[in-house]
Amino acid sequence: MTAFHLAPQLAADTVPVGDLALCRVLLMDDARFPWAILVPRRAGLTELHQLEPADGLLVWQETLRCGAVLAGFGSKINTGALGNMVRQLHLHVVARVEGDAAWPGPVWGSGPRQPYPAAVAAARVAQLAAGLGLAR
Amino acid sequence: MTAFHLAPQLAADTVPVGDLALCRVLLMDDARFPWAILVPRRAGLTELHQLEPADGLLVWQETLRCGAVLAGFGSKINTGALGNMVRQLHLHVVARVEGDAAWPGPVWGSGPRQPYPAAVAAARVAQLAAGLGLAR
Repeated sequence: MTAFHLAPQLAADTVPVGDLALCRVLLMDDARFPWAILVPRRAGLTELHQLEPADGLLVWQETLRCGAVLAGFGSKINTGALGNMVRQLHLHVVARVEGDAAWPGPVWGSGPRQPYPAAVAAARVAQLAAGLGLAR
Repeated sequence: MTAFHLAPQLAADTVPVGDLALCRVLLMDDARFPWAILVPRRAGLTELHQLEPADGLLVWQETLRCGAVLAGFGSKINTGALGNMVRQLHLHVVARVEGDAAWPGPVWGSGPRQPYPAAVAAARVAQLAAGLGLAR
């Protein structure tokens, strides 16, 4: 069994929030959007339908949980699993606000990310971790 | 209890494929991408986390089933629930091919759809329905 390693591009673009039962939760380091990424800690997966059924249920539940927490940061949740650029299976959960930098289009492909000031990233990570019940 | 009605914009942009246990399955009438839309037949929902748990499980299973079928039409599945333009809860499942009209960006916001010739749409609907085990 191959060990799970986070894809380098995901590591480079995000700040870690913590680990839920199955997924690693990351904050996308883009101050334009409250944006979490969930990465199932399983090696070698690229598609949702490749998940074992029990893992799939966890991914679903953890995605919903993340969406419910992020709903406090916007008026519409966008959820997506694309993987056209980074093949490692991961899900995006993004809080959208009317008039935000990509509205009403998708956040993916909406231009270069704008990193948070470090203190703001830390505060947002703490908010997400608290909402998800992750001890830190 | 309010009855389910398909949002007019979704009806206008798609061709019906059939009904799974919970979701209505539609083919996006865009010849650029093999693209299904699943609409849970429940009134008044806009977010995935608003689904009753049993309904959520069905939506997840039906989305995966659709992804597994569409995997035969491309090399990468993109799954998304956005709803920035059409608020009625719906999920996109799209088969992507490297070099397609939006690659590697998302299909959402990739320009006007290019309707299928009617016979091609009918053939694609038949393929999807057969893959999903929908009697027609």
